Amino acid sequence: MPPKLPDTPFALVDLARVDRNATRLRDRLDGLGVPLRLHVKTVKSVELVRRTHGRAPITVSTLAEAEYFAAAGYDDIVYAVGIDPHKLPRVAALRARGIALTVLLDSRAQAEAVAAAGIPALIEIDADGSRAGLRPADPLLPEIGAVLGDRLAGVLTHAGGSYHAFTPEARAAAAQGERDAVVGAAEVLRAAGMDCPVVSLGSTPTAHTVRDLTGVTEVRAGVYLFFDLVMAGLGICTLDDLALSVVVTVIGHRPDRGRILTDGGWMALSRDRGTAEQPVDQGYGLVTDLAGTPLPDLLVTGASQEHGILALRPGSGHPLPELPVGTRLRVLPNHACATAAQYAFYHVLADGALSRVERHTGW
Amino acid sequence: MPPKLPDTPFALVDLARVDRNATRLRDRLDGLGVPLRLHVKTVKSVELVRRTHGRAPITVSTLAEAEYFAAAGYDDIVYAVGIDPHKLPRVAALRARGIALTVLLDSRAQAEAVAAAGIPALIEIDADGSRAGLRPADPLLPEIGAVLGDRLAGVLTHAGGSYHAFTPEARAAAAQGERDAVVGAAEVLRAAGMDCPVVSLGSTPTAHTVRDLTGVTEVRAGVYLFFDLVMAGLGICTLDDLALSVVVTVIGHRPDRGRILTDGGWMALSRDRGTAEQPVDQGYGLVTDLAGTPLPDLLVTGASQEHGILALRPGSGHPLPELPVGTRLRVLPNHACATAAQYAFYHVLADGALSRVERHTGW
Repeated sequence: MPPKLPDTPFALVDLARVDRNATRLRDRLDGLGVPLRLHVKTVKSVELVRRTHGRAPITVSTLAEAEYFAAAGYDDIVYAVGIDPHKLPRVAALRARGIALTVLLDSRAQAEAVAAAGIPALIEIDADGSRAGLRPADPLLPEIGAVLGDRLAGVLTHAGGSYHAFTPEARAAAAQGERDAVVGAAEVLRAAGMDCPVVSLGSTPTAHTVRDLTGVTEVRAGVYLFFDLVMAGLGICTLDDLALSVVVTVIGHRPDRGRILTDGGWMALSRDRGTAEQPVDQGYGLVTDLAGTPLPDLLVTGASQEHGILALRPGSGHPLPELPVGTRLRVLPNHACATAAQYAFYHVLADGALSRVERHTGW
Repeated sequence: MPPKLPDTPFALVDLARVDRNATRLRDRLDGLGVPLRLHVKTVKSVELVRRTHGRAPITVSTLAEAEYFAAAGYDDIVYAVGIDPHKLPRVAALRARGIALTVLLDSRAQAEAVAAAGIPALIEIDADGSRAGLRPADPLLPEIGAVLGDRLAGVLTHAGGSYHAFTPEARAAAAQGERDAVVGAAEVLRAAGMDCPVVSLGSTPTAHTVRDLTGVTEVRAGVYLFFDLVMAGLGICTLDDLALSVVVTVIGHRPDRGRILTDGGWMALSRDRGTAEQPVDQGYGLVTDLAGTPLPDLLVTGASQEHGILALRPGSGHPLPELPVGTRLRVLPNHACATAAQYAFYHVLADGALSRVERHTGW
């Protein structure tokens, strides 16, 4: 780290780790013969996406992301949240600029609005009951396909349940279930005489697990560029792969309560407590020194708006480390998407130097 | 509400409620004869602060807030998070521009750095063990006062425990304890021969409860301008006082699971689950129609990045309401500070019209 750092808190990105994470998934999917449609909702940065993914097709979670990436030359975009018909004029405006923007839906009402607007759509398929979509056997699936007519682009699914798959067997089942659901849905549409060119699936856990992508045309993943404690808790990565951290400073001590206070509260870290549902609860994040080496059992156990409370993991045999006022530390976050979303820019560390890189915010 | 609304999600502020909430606390503190030093960390908007508070003294939670409000003419500011010595040059730069900016500390190391920089400081007092500060009887208190010398501005406390006071008796005890701690600390300093002009306390629950402010020179509060479900759960306000909501749109249904999907996920609402620790858990927020009338027992029970899952409160006898795709709804948030922080601007509703008002983001 350079000797002079910005005021804390700030979001630090380790570029060598981003590159390594990008290469790992690219090599894996190359081996399976299926392209990646990067989900940009985690990093939301043209500079980081261009570096790791070039100008290849992307996935977005908002139309504002689509507009931001379109302005930077991205012209093949899937908006992977069920479409609100009020938003179709914005979709149409992007398409009129030559952007191949495809929307997502799972109801007849959406399909009628989208078909009337002449916008291509994917039908969302429910792989595991986690969120949205139609089961492959739902009689609505071919009905909606028929409403879309030549605007039917294909089918898409996301195995949200893979975030709760804590064994290799459970992950393999989630990955196979995701593939079988979306390929099965494509077969239903084709059996009804429709074209179904796109068969899209993905989540970071399944993308790093799946072995059979027969019939699948693209894989989506996003958080893998940064990884986080939730992914480490699932066994998809190690702590050494985590590319995003938040740099904070010690501002006080309460030795009577076994606490150290920092200037990194929930504004800096987000309120995400994703590891609370995992076998190992990491509080609001795991604390490392400024070089990135974990301080044994030291967690962010509490957070108010601009205060973080550090304490040892319950039952730890380690002593509370001596960290004087002014000590800089890093916090590894539970959920990189939520933590990154607290910032309008990253400080990117590459070859020992820091540079400021913009990220997109808002809707 | 006007017929044409912005794309969802967006943060809606009901200005009549803000005004009413502001008047309520102003009248209360006028009756007690103590001025308010508004904490701007919740609304972070010059326009809303000027409307409700004029250019009177303010409290901030970051130096970026201090810089933003100083640029708008606020010149009496307390930065109420323990000072990181690295940040003193930014403090000094604001003071050199004529801003009466005071910092907060509770250690000898901070006091030495602050005194060397010639910056006035308040000593943080711990009223209830919630977070930072010295107990009034701590022998460090007069030692730090002596290190500060003529840079000692006074004492400040925040009864964080008032957020867990669920009966009128518990709230009264929290308010009295907050007052007694900070006044007691001032007396310790004065007994040691030091001046202690500022005796500052506050939290929204105690500010709305306290009856005895003898010896107190200012009260701090911030979230009361918006209020939220946490404050309603504490009995400090009613649902009818909540001035901040998030407008979302229905994007799908899972009747087999009793779920309705919206485009308002944790990006729109924040990950804050503050009511999870209260007697009534409100999920990620309580759902109302677009006019603001609660839909019986309908909560945001789950949230991913850009998806909200609505379902009935467990045990509800109500049916799931019929809310077609495209229906606009409002969500009342758990914690207004965290929800507002997800936005760079508000849509302010006044006299049936919406206008866009900037708010500050970042550090």
